[in-house]
Amino acid sequence: MSHNSFGHLFRVTTFGESHGPALGAVVDGCPPRIPLTAEEIQVFLDKRKPGQSRFTTQRREDDAVKILSGVFTDDAGRQVTTGAPIALMIDNTDQRSKDYAEIAQKYRPGHADYVYDAKYGIRDYRGGGRSSARETAARVAAGAVARKVVAGVTIRGALVQMGPHKIDRARFDWAEVDKNPFFCPDKIAAAHWESYLDEIRKSGSSVGAVIELEATGVPVGWGAPIYGKLDADLALALMSINAVKGVEIGAGFEAAALTGEENADEMRKGPSFLSNHAGGILGGLSTGQPVVARFAVKPTSSILTPRKTIDRAGEETEIVTKGRHDPCVGIRAVPVGEAMMACVLADHFLRHRGQVG
Amino acid sequence: MSHNSFGHLFRVTTFGESHGPALGAVVDGCPPRIPLTAEEIQVFLDKRKPGQSRFTTQRREDDAVKILSGVFTDDAGRQVTTGAPIALMIDNTDQRSKDYAEIAQKYRPGHADYVYDAKYGIRDYRGGGRSSARETAARVAAGAVARKVVAGVTIRGALVQMGPHKIDRARFDWAEVDKNPFFCPDKIAAAHWESYLDEIRKSGSSVGAVIELEATGVPVGWGAPIYGKLDADLALALMSINAVKGVEIGAGFEAAALTGEENADEMRKGPSFLSNHAGGILGGLSTGQPVVARFAVKPTSSILTPRKTIDRAGEETEIVTKGRHDPCVGIRAVPVGEAMMACVLADHFLRHRGQVG
Amino acid sequence: MSHNSFGHLFRVTTFGESHGPALGAVVDGCPPRIPLTAEEIQVFLDKRKPGQSRFTTQRREDDAVKILSGVFTDDAGRQVTTGAPIALMIDNTDQRSKDYAEIAQKYRPGHADYVYDAKYGIRDYRGGGRSSARETAARVAAGAVARKVVAGVTIRGALVQMGPHKIDRARFDWAEVDKNPFFCPDKIAAAHWESYLDEIRKSGSSVGAVIELEATGVPVGWGAPIYGKLDADLALALMSINAVKGVEIGAGFEAAALTGEENADEMRKGPSFLSNHAGGILGGLSTGQPVVARFAVKPTSSILTPRKTIDRAGEETEIVTKGRHDPCVGIRAVPVGEAMMACVLADHFLRHRGQVG
Amino acid sequence: MSHNSFGHLFRVTTFGESHGPALGAVVDGCPPRIPLTAEEIQVFLDKRKPGQSRFTTQRREDDAVKILSGVFTDDAGRQVTTGAPIALMIDNTDQRSKDYAEIAQKYRPGHADYVYDAKYGIRDYRGGGRSSARETAARVAAGAVARKVVAGVTIRGALVQMGPHKIDRARFDWAEVDKNPFFCPDKIAAAHWESYLDEIRKSGSSVGAVIELEATGVPVGWGAPIYGKLDADLALALMSINAVKGVEIGAGFEAAALTGEENADEMRKGPSFLSNHAGGILGGLSTGQPVVARFAVKPTSSILTPRKTIDRAGEETEIVTKGRHDPCVGIRAVPVGEAMMACVLADHFLRHRGQVG
Repeated sequence: MSHNSFGHLFRVTTFGESHGPALGAVVDGCPPRIPLTAEEIQVFLDKRKPGQSRFTTQRREDDAVKILSGVFTDDAGRQVTTGAPIALMIDNTDQRSKDYAEIAQKYRPGHADYVYDAKYGIRDYRGGGRSSARETAARVAAGAVARKVVAGVTIRGALVQMGPHKIDRARFDWAEVDKNPFFCPDKIAAAHWESYLDEIRKSGSSVGAVIELEATGVPVGWGAPIYGKLDADLALALMSINAVKGVEIGAGFEAAALTGEENADEMRKGPSFLSNHAGGILGGLSTGQPVVARFAVKPTSSILTPRKTIDRAGEETEIVTKGRHDPCVGIRAVPVGEAMMACVLADHFLRHRGQVG
Repeated sequence: MSHNSFGHLFRVTTFGESHGPALGAVVDGCPPRIPLTAEEIQVFLDKRKPGQSRFTTQRREDDAVKILSGVFTDDAGRQVTTGAPIALMIDNTDQRSKDYAEIAQKYRPGHADYVYDAKYGIRDYRGGGRSSARETAARVAAGAVARKVVAGVTIRGALVQMGPHKIDRARFDWAEVDKNPFFCPDKIAAAHWESYLDEIRKSGSSVGAVIELEATGVPVGWGAPIYGKLDADLALALMSINAVKGVEIGAGFEAAALTGEENADEMRKGPSFLSNHAGGILGGLSTGQPVVARFAVKPTSSILTPRKTIDRAGEETEIVTKGRHDPCVGIRAVPVGEAMMACVLADHFLRHRGQVG
Repeated sequence: MSHNSFGHLFRVTTFGESHGPALGAVVDGCPPRIPLTAEEIQVFLDKRKPGQSRFTTQRREDDAVKILSGVFTDDAGRQVTTGAPIALMIDNTDQRSKDYAEIAQKYRPGHADYVYDAKYGIRDYRGGGRSSARETAARVAAGAVARKVVAGVTIRGALVQMGPHKIDRARFDWAEVDKNPFFCPDKIAAAHWESYLDEIRKSGSSVGAVIELEATGVPVGWGAPIYGKLDADLALALMSINAVKGVEIGAGFEAAALTGEENADEMRKGPSFLSNHAGGILGGLSTGQPVVARFAVKPTSSILTPRKTIDRAGEETEIVTKGRHDPCVGIRAVPVGEAMMACVLADHFLRHRGQVG
Repeated sequence: MSHNSFGHLFRVTTFGESHGPALGAVVDGCPPRIPLTAEEIQVFLDKRKPGQSRFTTQRREDDAVKILSGVFTDDAGRQVTTGAPIALMIDNTDQRSKDYAEIAQKYRPGHADYVYDAKYGIRDYRGGGRSSARETAARVAAGAVARKVVAGVTIRGALVQMGPHKIDRARFDWAEVDKNPFFCPDKIAAAHWESYLDEIRKSGSSVGAVIELEATGVPVGWGAPIYGKLDADLALALMSINAVKGVEIGAGFEAAALTGEENADEMRKGPSFLSNHAGGILGGLSTGQPVVARFAVKPTSSILTPRKTIDRAGEETEIVTKGRHDPCVGIRAVPVGEAMMACVLADHFLRHRGQVG
């Protein structure tokens, strides 16, 4: 079972609420003797960290990760994994004292408030509790460990659509991604998005996004039929991220409109492929081409416009979600998506090695 | 682990190859005292069965299912489940004697031939072996059992796009779905698709499709954060179907283009919702609204046009995939998608009952 | 979850009832390219098969196993595993027509009749249904596959105690095991047991037993802390066999009476050990010494002496269990125990390879 | 997979090493709205805590547990579970500065030193690292949560054998268990053990033990055939505790010496049973009688007598394990065994509710 765990041989269990004392992850099954420091993990947490530009929530969190277990100093003096579970902890420091009376009583549309109350009969309403996007910090920390497990694989992500505005794929340039606050690979789109999102932000509104992920260096054969397919596990992983409403691999939904001649990637010596509509996965197994996935993030549900809702007693009312929010939560989903892809690949690397040596 | 198993409390394990003696499924965890006969399962297998129109493969299979275990006669004389694993078996009868020399040696683009050989070093090439769409018969059989577990839930599917041609959503009518060979809910589109697909078929080509699934009657609260989300498990389930390249829930990829005001479904007394962009799932839990998912199926990779490829020795060559194939494999994916949704819901029903009573 | 599945990377799911049409197992995760024929599996089924001496049930079953999937002919013309799930099926042929009226209504003491009815509200009472020892045929078939996965390991078992009569360990000789109908490694004890068990059998009584298992050739390091320990998984595996009431590793319960000096196995170059109280397992990991486990089987509950019980209505009554039964079900538990040990080792071999390469 | 996780619906993942900054557990799947405070958990940790008598290690640890997540204040002002994962953390405070040079280089017989090095190529040798009995503190904390989940069940344990000295079962009195430092239910045995263990302790030796566990209040029907048996899961749970070498249920190994007449527990109206050789479990399901299990703990491997061993380079040497050790580690295994039984029962309660409602 896996309420709060992900993966099989590389297995991540996360815990923690938005305004509790801490959140974290336990990474189980990590191979031994992999150099690993908190600093290496911190790099990725810093990419996801709130408050880095005016386009992300102004909550101030250091997101400083501590490694509580599973590492030790080897004969060469390096801190390495031991094969024991790696517990990662991030203290919540900015639990701003605030009046929760309203969201304690009213259900915010688009949030999990109502369904949590209906299911559990109790809800940690402070900042969204367990359903807060803050949980994704634990994923990013775990993903940093996963990257070390598949050290030969390069995993990167980019925002390819903000609201209705898509990038121009002819201008796609990975080098641009770190040069703007949107992880946008298209310099011109990034400039446009800046003014667009400023407007959204100032109006108290929000907007969705599409993120594209790519993993290069994945050898042929990772994955497993029929329910352990690499693409199926990617779908599980990415759809499990807060606010994600769609996942696609390679040509994705556009494949529906193609003919068999257009879609099937022809092969040449190498082996090599003349195209990659498959997104690097056939029959659930990696082909050796880049693994390409995209996922859609809905607009942040916390907005300043009053919305109709009900309260815990079932009575009709309205709510305005004040507070510190991301106008486009999809931006910070980029490192989260990368982390999930890293976890899936680490798991499948170990599973592949287990079954076929 | 779950190479060939799906689900946790309602757990399905499938086995079998396209041209082996039989294929089947073991359904474990089914609650006891549910009336179940082979005939009830057969109804759904017949929907998926090949050879029912000129638009599906002409392979002739009875797809007659046998229940080998897990049922017994109760005091009222009905055949009911006992709580023991239900083994379902379907004999392969039409293992047409055929020359497999070509596909034994050459990799069909878009198929799993190359990756299976690369991973396992051995491949049952007859009709695609384990990676054949024939495996989905076992899923449909298991899904029929799942439907009985969630008897209050109605699960249905429809083809909403064939190739580039989408239905007109204003004409969406579930009553139309069984009146045409495409499971198309739009009468006018169905008529158009008939001539369109005939052309595709005659040219030896193929085309993709998008299927929409809906489950009504799902109560609020099924699902579980963070990695046991109902939508994440649906994504896993649907992406695990052969040839699927994308999955979305509710507004799906279109949610990316919406603002927060447009996307968040407002609530009224009942509780009721003023819209269903969420597709019936928030925070990974069902909201009580219809659960809506869509998935994209790529065009059948087996086509009559010669394609460039390599052989097992790595040498460049060409291949034409002769034989009996579906010009739009998405059509028969409709009952398969329904079955997977049923399995996910049965599993989450039991998991919900386990955790919260 | 794992109601009817066992193992993680080498995963066995069994199905079937004593008097249903068939029983079987699906073996998932088996590595590819391992030569495997039904005949090789049959050898182990024949060891467990009923009716081979007057000391086992006179039910006549061929126990002929069929491989339904997961194997294919390789380039060398051998039938080998493909990495796909291996479905194994054994038809039930001797479903003797018999009056089940009594056991349908009365609970046999020591059997699962009462608890199944209480839990499931329905019970396949024919020959014990799912709780029949017949289910172990499926385990033996799966175990035969497992042995091929750990081809370098030799797994064997022996009956070391029948009723109160233990073997003389000084006379322990593996070569004797196949020379008597009890899998007894002590020639003199075997002779004694023959007359002893004849008496038990003629009186309609039954008796328990202790089985010892040994695996040689297991390299150091299989297993995993803390809940994936090799000994813990052996305990799970052996305790899951019908009628087993105790499991021990190495010195087992006798270790309680030892001092630290006596118990801890000293090491010498090689590495080698000066003793094996640990039974080849320390900290949950194999040491490279023989893995030694024992398990206790209770006496067959089906006896000819009338026993007090209740019926389905809760009324007090008596029952005599007529029919074909083993006077010492522990005898046929020897190949079953071997099979379970083989499955555990195959699983841990793959898990070890997955985590540490 | 489950290297460091235990259970399915009630799922415990532990982490931490003996001399790392902290150890802990994440409890996933706990039902909501169960009152839970750190103080309630602390009660059980205090039972296990070292340094409480001269018969346990003199290491000084507060073992103060913190709840990091998964609880919230309900409308009645009580702290209750929310259904989210409950992270429990215990800081290591007494990481006594000490020279580890010897155990870093030499393998202590009976410990996991050699096998960890062989498997992982790296070993946290400080106090045994991950394989230290200190890990069991996390189990006890998780077990305290489990007890709340099965609030109607009473779980208790007692030491019934120390070294070769068994209690007199006629004097078995649960009221005595908390009146002596051994959890001994036999007042006279306890007095005898005191002088016996003093002698063992002073000589720098150690001794094993047998612990008996009993759960009353378990209703009929928990558990699941065939691999999800309640007894099999108890065996897994108890065998996973450090130093355990044997597990038995009910009559256990003594059942082997019984006849069918003696062993099968007859039934009377109620339903009730005339005996409990089954230890409250038949066919893997609870019978409604007390669930009775016993497990054997080997003598502490750390002793003052020099023992032959090898060093990391494979060279022969001797080692004396100085430091703070339990002369009979079985004593502190009592609360650990109780905790594991509680976890198994909580898991099976939820699994039972999931499958049969």
